[in-house]
Amino acid sequence: MEKSALQICRSAYSPKLPKGLRGGVSIKEGEPTQSVGNQEEIKALFPNTYGMPLVEFVPGDSKEKAEPINMGVILSGGQAPGGHNVICGLFDELKRINPASRLYGFLMGPGGLVDHKYIEITSEIVDEYRNTGGFDMIGSGRTKLEEKEQFEKGLLIIRELGINAIVIIGGDDSNTNACVLAEYYAAHNYGVQVIGCPKTIDGDLKNDQIETSFGFDTACKTYAEVIGNIQRDANSARKYWHFIKLMGRSASHIALECALQCQPNICIVSEEVEAKNMTLDDIVTYISDIVAKRAANGNNFGTVLIPEGLIEFIPAMKHLIAELNDLLATAEAAEHEGAAQRAWILSKLSAENAAIYESLPEGVAHQLTMERDPHGNVQVSLIETEKLLSEMVAVKLATWAQEGKFAGKFAAQHHFFGYEGRCAAPSNYDADYCYALGTSAAELVANGKTGYMAIVKNTTAPAEEWIAGGVPITMMMNMERRHGKMKPVIRKALVDLEGAPFKTFAAHREAWAEQTAFVYPGPIQYWGPAEVCDRCTMTLALEQAK
Amino acid sequence: MEKSALQICRSAYSPKLPKGLRGGVSIKEGEPTQSVGNQEEIKALFPNTYGMPLVEFVPGDSKEKAEPINMGVILSGGQAPGGHNVICGLFDELKRINPASRLYGFLMGPGGLVDHKYIEITSEIVDEYRNTGGFDMIGSGRTKLEEKEQFEKGLLIIRELGINAIVIIGGDDSNTNACVLAEYYAAHNYGVQVIGCPKTIDGDLKNDQIETSFGFDTACKTYAEVIGNIQRDANSARKYWHFIKLMGRSASHIALECALQCQPNICIVSEEVEAKNMTLDDIVTYISDIVAKRAANGNNFGTVLIPEGLIEFIPAMKHLIAELNDLLATAEAAEHEGAAQRAWILSKLSAENAAIYESLPEGVAHQLTMERDPHGNVQVSLIETEKLLSEMVAVKLATWAQEGKFAGKFAAQHHFFGYEGRCAAPSNYDADYCYALGTSAAELVANGKTGYMAIVKNTTAPAEEWIAGGVPITMMMNMERRHGKMKPVIRKALVDLEGAPFKTFAAHREAWAEQTAFVYPGPIQYWGPAEVCDRCTMTLALEQAK
Repeated sequence: MEKSALQICRSAYSPKLPKGLRGGVSIKEGEPTQSVGNQEEIKALFPNTYGMPLVEFVPGDSKEKAEPINMGVILSGGQAPGGHNVICGLFDELKRINPASRLYGFLMGPGGLVDHKYIEITSEIVDEYRNTGGFDMIGSGRTKLEEKEQFEKGLLIIRELGINAIVIIGGDDSNTNACVLAEYYAAHNYGVQVIGCPKTIDGDLKNDQIETSFGFDTACKTYAEVIGNIQRDANSARKYWHFIKLMGRSASHIALECALQCQPNICIVSEEVEAKNMTLDDIVTYISDIVAKRAANGNNFGTVLIPEGLIEFIPAMKHLIAELNDLLATAEAAEHEGAAQRAWILSKLSAENAAIYESLPEGVAHQLTMERDPHGNVQVSLIETEKLLSEMVAVKLATWAQEGKFAGKFAAQHHFFGYEGRCAAPSNYDADYCYALGTSAAELVANGKTGYMAIVKNTTAPAEEWIAGGVPITMMMNMERRHGKMKPVIRKALVDLEGAPFKTFAAHREAWAEQTAFVYPGPIQYWGPAEVCDRCTMTLALEQAK
Repeated sequence: MEKSALQICRSAYSPKLPKGLRGGVSIKEGEPTQSVGNQEEIKALFPNTYGMPLVEFVPGDSKEKAEPINMGVILSGGQAPGGHNVICGLFDELKRINPASRLYGFLMGPGGLVDHKYIEITSEIVDEYRNTGGFDMIGSGRTKLEEKEQFEKGLLIIRELGINAIVIIGGDDSNTNACVLAEYYAAHNYGVQVIGCPKTIDGDLKNDQIETSFGFDTACKTYAEVIGNIQRDANSARKYWHFIKLMGRSASHIALECALQCQPNICIVSEEVEAKNMTLDDIVTYISDIVAKRAANGNNFGTVLIPEGLIEFIPAMKHLIAELNDLLATAEAAEHEGAAQRAWILSKLSAENAAIYESLPEGVAHQLTMERDPHGNVQVSLIETEKLLSEMVAVKLATWAQEGKFAGKFAAQHHFFGYEGRCAAPSNYDADYCYALGTSAAELVANGKTGYMAIVKNTTAPAEEWIAGGVPITMMMNMERRHGKMKPVIRKALVDLEGAPFKTFAAHREAWAEQTAFVYPGPIQYWGPAEVCDRCTMTLALEQAK
């Protein structure tokens, strides 16, 4: 692997560890825990892994004579900056506990366990990947570990390699599945522990126990860098409105964090759109109003941040999509193609949905009916929301211009940022946080725990004051309907409209809309003043300041 | 202006100056010069500014008793990182020469001079913008200074403010116009000097005298950062081909530099496409071949870099567009709209062009005929080349799959990077280079020069060894046909297929195509090891190493 100058120099960085994880480690156990909801059901489903205590690691005796541990590690789902450092933390701690310990990496995600694809992770490999972005050390994948057959197939390779524990690095679903696997292996007395690690750039895996998921920090800073650059361009050229869609699945955490960092003119928050039962036209009107107000002040430019999940949070769009899914599944649908299809659809839709369908730009309407997933459903993720909104704003402003209500100019540029940030080299925060998570996960295993997620708290303080430990995964669970069935799952954290990050944004957005209050965060720095290199996200700082 | 932590800390950076510009400055003049072509015509057009010597600044006596200088500065054309530092260099040197000197900034580009829109640039303003990206200090614009009426209108405000000299910061056209203005003011004995500065992220303003235009370094590094991140994602998820279009107008310098930094699987170079008379199908086949080869090795992922000017370098596309422009200008064209238009166009085009038109994805063909500029011409820049190519590759691979020649998977993601880099905070290279250019420009004025461009050479060496000076703009000129007329212009530098950057790329591209040799440059660093923070572009290093 040919390395860039940055990568070579950055590999020498030593992640800062919490006091409790430097050298000898002792475990401090709390009281038994309860799940956040549906206690009876969760307890019944997880008899072996329910009610366990929270644990915390504190400085303790050296465990030089501990037994070696063989461990398997799995990266699950979308990439997030810092994944390699979790593995480095695991590796270093296992070797510290006993140099004869071994770490295996299952390849291309959970499927690697089932299909027995793995490598042994050696010190040479680990040293190649310290403080790097990406999941390319062992790859990732989206296979869901849910079935007993998978668990049993996995067990064969676990036995063959003499593995004591599996660490699954993933999002809410992957960690739910890690707990199911932990329960299964415990129920069968297989003697295999399972530990989870909270990963996702989307920021939606957090709760009273988990301050943040790793990767959110680096990804947001990378997006904020380019958004800031675009804003500076907008403010220099003064002729474009930039519509910027941001990854983040259902949750708007990324868009909100970028808004807090960059102070754009507009940021749409899906959770608010749903709570206020806003229509697509409401959103378009909201944007158009701000465009018109700025134009009245001579500012024919600006920025709009849009969370990728927006469409599905607009109740009226949800209804339209549901009706379209049903309609297009009928035998009659196949008889109407091309231009004739549009007329047929309009004749069949309910009046309300027909009106919305008709209001959509033709290209988008076409996309809604053409591109369907293997189940025949409309593929909402393919809709270029950034273009949809800017086109509809242009139409509305043209009407307003005719009515004498808008005398400015409106020209748009479009951007979608996602892949740009998922594999960035981790910020100091993520490099440190992930290394501590990995170290913590190794210690949870060394202390005989299973069904836990590794956690690190107090991360707005300097790293040495961080508190590492573990939380029983069942503690974060409740029952939710998924695909028509009630299932035990970790509660997904959408943006809390009563939380400090949203409230801070809401308190400033009017000023940011009319004024040009852009902030330019610049690229992530790995060397230099601590106030530049070591700051956490504004979301985290605001949440923890409460 | 609310500032980010990075911006606050970075403002304290002191750009490194060449030895010749630290403190007292003496001027060293060379022999008379000739234009690079059409000497007689250029000499006749520029009788007052032709044949002047190259000049170089060397350490010299302090000029504490020099007269104050009043200067106007103009930012012209697209944003480029470092523009503010040129102004800072101008300001500091003017004040060093005599604290009573004044600097005026004309607003929103050359139009500010004509329309008398300006501000006085004070030390408070300069200090707000040190080492920042963007042109927002005074704005930029695309008004061309070409007409005598403009020159005379400008003179009114020049006289009113007692301005001795104008500095125009711009690309090849703006510097050509700066020379025309210098000649005009000289010919009329107005006593107003005009100096140019080489700006453009596109990298196409360079020659024997100009090593690089400012902004190219920072913009390329910003694009390389996100391309590297995308490549790491591609190599982790192993399921997408990323088609990445890059700004750069006609020239492919940006794409080539990013290729040298990131080692993608494919980089198209427009200049090579033209030289080899490649068709669109040739390019699609070239890409498809590599996709198929990688798929045969189990690698259903990769990256393709595409320069934004590509379409106009494909001779066959040029012919098609020319015929379309003529065809759509006919009265008959208006009679055919929507689906009928396509059939009509196909019936009218020459057989050769009809075949190409028919081979285009429908969306692109539609775009070619729908979106036209105010002159009725096809707007090539609106064509999403990255999607055009990936759609055509998908079609070809589907055919190959039927023929048993392709058994892999092909899924694409699309990106276009431009606005992300034009206003990034300047790298150390650009911060230093621009500050030296500004200082140099001030010294050219102080030494009575006009019709010169400020230059800094030897910039692959440490900054103190850089050589600052000036080059007569006429020296870089030749006659070229523009809009049907022969005009004196600075030769635009496209990618030289015999130059070291292209040859280095060409020598490695086969290996990069089949292997996964991605390099991940990471974000620009402002603090840290010199090998990370102070390196120049690979293009420059390779060109200067010859």
